[in-house]
Amino acid sequence: MAKDRAGRTRRPRAEAPRGFRDWFGAEVTARDAMLRRITEVYHRYGFDALETPAIETVEALGKFLPDVDRPNEGVFAWQDEGEWIALRYDLTAPLARVAAQYRNELPFPYRRYATGPVWRNEKPGPGRFRQFWQCDADTVGAPGPAADAEICAMLCDALEAAGIRRGDYVVRINSRRVLNGVLEVAGLLDPRDPDRRAAERGIVLRAIDKLDRLGEAGVRALLGEGRRDESGDFTRGAGLGPAQADIVMGFLCARGRDGAATLAALGGLVGSSATGRQGVDELEQIAGQLAALGYGADRIVIDPSVVRGLGYYTGPVYEAELTFEITDESGRPRQFGSVAGGGRYDDLVKRFTGQEVPATGVSIGVDRLMAALAASGRAAPPEPGPVVVTVMDRDRMADYAAMAAELRAAGIRAEVYLGNPRNFGNQLKYADRRGSPVAVIEGADERARGVVQLKDLGLGKRLAAEIASHEDWRAQPAQTEVPRAGLVAAVRRILDRAGG
Amino acid sequence: MAKDRAGRTRRPRAEAPRGFRDWFGAEVTARDAMLRRITEVYHRYGFDALETPAIETVEALGKFLPDVDRPNEGVFAWQDEGEWIALRYDLTAPLARVAAQYRNELPFPYRRYATGPVWRNEKPGPGRFRQFWQCDADTVGAPGPAADAEICAMLCDALEAAGIRRGDYVVRINSRRVLNGVLEVAGLLDPRDPDRRAAERGIVLRAIDKLDRLGEAGVRALLGEGRRDESGDFTRGAGLGPAQADIVMGFLCARGRDGAATLAALGGLVGSSATGRQGVDELEQIAGQLAALGYGADRIVIDPSVVRGLGYYTGPVYEAELTFEITDESGRPRQFGSVAGGGRYDDLVKRFTGQEVPATGVSIGVDRLMAALAASGRAAPPEPGPVVVTVMDRDRMADYAAMAAELRAAGIRAEVYLGNPRNFGNQLKYADRRGSPVAVIEGADERARGVVQLKDLGLGKRLAAEIASHEDWRAQPAQTEVPRAGLVAAVRRILDRAGG
Repeated sequence: MAKDRAGRTRRPRAEAPRGFRDWFGAEVTARDAMLRRITEVYHRYGFDALETPAIETVEALGKFLPDVDRPNEGVFAWQDEGEWIALRYDLTAPLARVAAQYRNELPFPYRRYATGPVWRNEKPGPGRFRQFWQCDADTVGAPGPAADAEICAMLCDALEAAGIRRGDYVVRINSRRVLNGVLEVAGLLDPRDPDRRAAERGIVLRAIDKLDRLGEAGVRALLGEGRRDESGDFTRGAGLGPAQADIVMGFLCARGRDGAATLAALGGLVGSSATGRQGVDELEQIAGQLAALGYGADRIVIDPSVVRGLGYYTGPVYEAELTFEITDESGRPRQFGSVAGGGRYDDLVKRFTGQEVPATGVSIGVDRLMAALAASGRAAPPEPGPVVVTVMDRDRMADYAAMAAELRAAGIRAEVYLGNPRNFGNQLKYADRRGSPVAVIEGADERARGVVQLKDLGLGKRLAAEIASHEDWRAQPAQTEVPRAGLVAAVRRILDRAGG
Repeated sequence: MAKDRAGRTRRPRAEAPRGFRDWFGAEVTARDAMLRRITEVYHRYGFDALETPAIETVEALGKFLPDVDRPNEGVFAWQDEGEWIALRYDLTAPLARVAAQYRNELPFPYRRYATGPVWRNEKPGPGRFRQFWQCDADTVGAPGPAADAEICAMLCDALEAAGIRRGDYVVRINSRRVLNGVLEVAGLLDPRDPDRRAAERGIVLRAIDKLDRLGEAGVRALLGEGRRDESGDFTRGAGLGPAQADIVMGFLCARGRDGAATLAALGGLVGSSATGRQGVDELEQIAGQLAALGYGADRIVIDPSVVRGLGYYTGPVYEAELTFEITDESGRPRQFGSVAGGGRYDDLVKRFTGQEVPATGVSIGVDRLMAALAASGRAAPPEPGPVVVTVMDRDRMADYAAMAAELRAAGIRAEVYLGNPRNFGNQLKYADRRGSPVAVIEGADERARGVVQLKDLGLGKRLAAEIASHEDWRAQPAQTEVPRAGLVAAVRRILDRAGG
């Protein structure tokens, strides 16, 4: 038993750790069903499942989280017999480790999907948890834009399979190479000395990533000296001069009336930068291939403001945004926002092997997507509870269990009441709480006459609160008596009537 | 980048941490499919899904693992801002926490199922990993043997749903209360002072649990002074005298020719112990209810040697054993052994609340059960790989992508080759490695004539190794030319022929 500060033993607290939550019933099964629909799409595209362990070595994970300046660095890590190990913070870093570890066994290009929880050692907040689910698909070993285009098309298909309607989402695409070209023009990146000014570039990247939250003025402050938020906390800026900041802001706002206009604007901004030119070309190819496959401007948008926070991206980056409006916590309407993101990370496998292994992929934020389905009214309706066989005579548990078994054998979800059967009203309250469609009742009298009582709880729900005893129930219209041998057929009729 | 001991940066090692493994493709999907079949059974019995986080507070988990004498105590634990947290070592301790935390919101009895990985900080060995999957079902708030009987019946149904044939498994049942009665008779347990000699009883319990591994002589050594194993390691014994050890061994070997005989023998062994009597009674009721439901002696056996290692059990305990023979690592035939276990743990919720909350449940060892299905030849056959659309002209990626999209729209798994297309032989090797049933080939010539070549790789597999160029393929009998517009129908014909 735990001890309090004075050394007295006390009971353990019945609480999940700070920032962690539990998932009940349909929260679990609805998510599983959605993941099944999404991974069916991935599978049909030729992607194979992979499950890596929750734990990796810290050196294998690397440090790519957006806010590496935080003291605990965003991961749950500890020492295990001298080795630092940690819970994975995403599904991409483990994939890079697998691609390197099994480079001689796997077929390349290696298309893989993965679903599972990841952990972030971050400050929890409302709706912000330290364990959340991701659903990823990545292609390792494919250098060309065709692989990026395929991921974007598949992301559209996956969102639609999950229940997001066409028109309610858009996949926004950009390229880190275009951004790097712009940073070259702004004098923040020297291709001959790429490590110089890396810290400032990191700040610029994270500032751009916050555009929808902070607006243009907030981003501009972070590009310059820094920004003080409403709580008084100060975030240091990148220290750019006004001319440099203008170039970055020009990039950020380069989105034109259509893809061609945006590409033309970006081409102008990257000037003579070879990297920038390459970025614009690859965006053109990706958008072109997607358009040829029918993924047009209604679903695919080139948007320079997309940069993605993670440190490992090297080329195209993409983000799926839901465009329908929801009402936020303060009652204001706003767009739902991002539910998936990804990009190309050509150097992540190279960390291990020293050899170039290009890779690209996407991660769907599963909990966000579930919340989106709920917010858009597209979540599955709650399923009815099990048929409850009540207990009138505790010496006849085997008979009641046999009734439930008969119902189950006919494919009907059913259970016997296993609490204290003395108070019959409690049994009915239990059935009500379970959302049960039917209660089965068989006392000594019914037993003698070879019948059972069936209570249609959907019909009878309004009355349930007032009724306490078995006798009262017999008078209710929602109750019918059927021969014991006709139990299954009669329950089936009630369920069919209710549309179950 | 990681540093070596001399402080030089070196590449991170591409390895999962010691004792952890990866799961590829069908290893993941076959397990998911099996879990779906099992949880469908649980669900039909009225059990609801629950998912708790991977992490719990150390105080909520408690210390119930069998080998609590080990230094690291079997769990992965670390400090998080002053609070000790740990990865769950099973799914039962988190359920007890949930039942206590949500005691006013949940319907009771609360039937819940859960699937997921658990973590044990144990020494890894061959086939012994530190992360493994469990699939549990528990009923919280039901005191009577009907709840235990239901769990045992459901366990039988779940094993059969997973693919284990009736006759290939048996559920063995015992009761901790019977054991406690025997320990009373042996003078190792005083009902008025239950904490006395708890350590010896723990050793007795763990000794009994090792009967199938160590045999009677090994168990007897552990009941007495102790035992030295083959490696020379010494395990301290319980220090029982010969008369006491005889009583325990008599209990262990009390299994008679049928359930009634075993119950009679146990009744004699527990003598006048009230606890022991109660244990024998509940075993009688459980077996009686199961027999009434058709779960007879071919599936349910009362077996005093079942005790289960975990510290929290208080009443009936059960174990599912697979009885078919496999060949072990040393080439010897042996029974497959245990794949599931559980029991009643009436005090686990009380730890939190101080109030009695009876509970009982079972945990299926998912990886063990998967291994059993493979060993018994009952695992699902490997599914064929995707249709591979090869790339003859890298400027026409969008056309190849369109072919794959057409096939997928018809429900056929398909992908475009996304590696370097220069060496056509590599594309075919890739298709072969993917287990692809069909390769689609369209060069400039085919394009001009409005046709595609389809290579039946199942038929052509034997020849594949010898062939390197596109031209060679045309001469092979397994290759057919079809109109481009007939692509989907022709692929479908090949798949149907192969039984796909």
